[in-house]
Amino acid sequence: MARFFVSEKEMEKDKIILCEEQGKHAKVLRLKEGEEVILSDTVGNEAVCVVDALQGENLYLSVKERRKSLTEPKVKVKVYMALPKADKFEHVVMKATELGASEIITFPTSRSIVKMDEKKLDGKLSRFRKIALSAAEQSGRGIVPEVRYINSYKEALLSAKESDKAILFYENEKSLTLKKTIENNDFKTVSIITGPEGGLDKREVEEAVSLGIEVCTLGSRILRCETAPLCALSAIMYQTGEF
Amino acid sequence: MARFFVSEKEMEKDKIILCEEQGKHAKVLRLKEGEEVILSDTVGNEAVCVVDALQGENLYLSVKERRKSLTEPKVKVKVYMALPKADKFEHVVMKATELGASEIITFPTSRSIVKMDEKKLDGKLSRFRKIALSAAEQSGRGIVPEVRYINSYKEALLSAKESDKAILFYENEKSLTLKKTIENNDFKTVSIITGPEGGLDKREVEEAVSLGIEVCTLGSRILRCETAPLCALSAIMYQTGEF
Repeated sequence: MARFFVSEKEMEKDKIILCEEQGKHAKVLRLKEGEEVILSDTVGNEAVCVVDALQGENLYLSVKERRKSLTEPKVKVKVYMALPKADKFEHVVMKATELGASEIITFPTSRSIVKMDEKKLDGKLSRFRKIALSAAEQSGRGIVPEVRYINSYKEALLSAKESDKAILFYENEKSLTLKKTIENNDFKTVSIITGPEGGLDKREVEEAVSLGIEVCTLGSRILRCETAPLCALSAIMYQTGEF
Repeated sequence: MARFFVSEKEMEKDKIILCEEQGKHAKVLRLKEGEEVILSDTVGNEAVCVVDALQGENLYLSVKERRKSLTEPKVKVKVYMALPKADKFEHVVMKATELGASEIITFPTSRSIVKMDEKKLDGKLSRFRKIALSAAEQSGRGIVPEVRYINSYKEALLSAKESDKAILFYENEKSLTLKKTIENNDFKTVSIITGPEGGLDKREVEEAVSLGIEVCTLGSRILRCETAPLCALSAIMYQTGEF
């Protein structure tokens, strides 16, 4: 079933008109009178709607049923990924949204090859958020994950620490598995932290440990920086009963 | 530690010279006399070597220790992915290699948008295999996963069935989770099967069921065709104790 995100205010109405980009999309999908679509308010509420008409690029809808989103994971996973080169972060924003992340955060580290140009930050974040919105619509999410930049490694760790569990993945950690850390399912929120292309610095890992963050392995193969968060996210969704 | 794949025959020697592409790579890595590198024969045997010299683009090595690869997963996972559009299969070959797949196979389905041009097959397979080789080197695999094309859906299912377990992921399956299917860890080899962009046809799923293949969900969110196999592979590696 086609899905569209609308504002919370728009969702209050009983008759809703989608136009512009969403109207164009409805036209591409060739939606027909009587078909059902789902509107979501980006914060977990849905409305099942019936198509009254598609005129040009305007889609006229009537709300049939209101409900909580049925597709949001039971556990909220926040993905903290050290700022990588080029389009790798965009890739992770798209895939982590599909896989069910609740928030996606990037931050600088000592070995980050790229520096975030703070003048361009707003433009970049706006692009990342569009990618998250589009991936959320296509995968049928009930929310759009927030995408943020935190301009200090320490602040990123402190923010991650606010979850019930905070786990950092480090290629030199050999013994503590993710499984040992999460198999009790004793958390409702979890933050996962991964490094940049060159890996995290030893001192950065020690800093995380000193804040009470757990350090785990993702196995004996070396994962690329864009693979690690998606692998960990998939495993956590599996462990917490999503599939 | 830098890793290179060499032939089984080459591995038998006690003094080994790497040249051409591998010599160039050694130069880029600025390998120095006395440093250690690992050679692997692509079928699970390794040799820890010491650099005797790097002259131009020739790397002179002495074998110090021979051993079985330490990085291969305990369970062999074969990834069967319906032929997708464009470069999505290349992406999956790269990522599935990193994540530990033992073999990666593509095949046609009724809704596959792309048809494999059999005249171009050899060229394409050779390209896919180069990607697997390079990803295997970078991630420290002990083998290079085989990449194959099977030119019939039925044959692909029969091939998948040869594993101890064969699982097909279908977005309309709502109840049987992957966890229920694999939590007993009663398998040494497992095949995972995923559909193309438009999903598998209902009859194709029934055909798999009739062959005894289990049909599972990957959760209530709709994953793209290139995300599904990597998500399932990550979860299986997690379940079987890799991390």
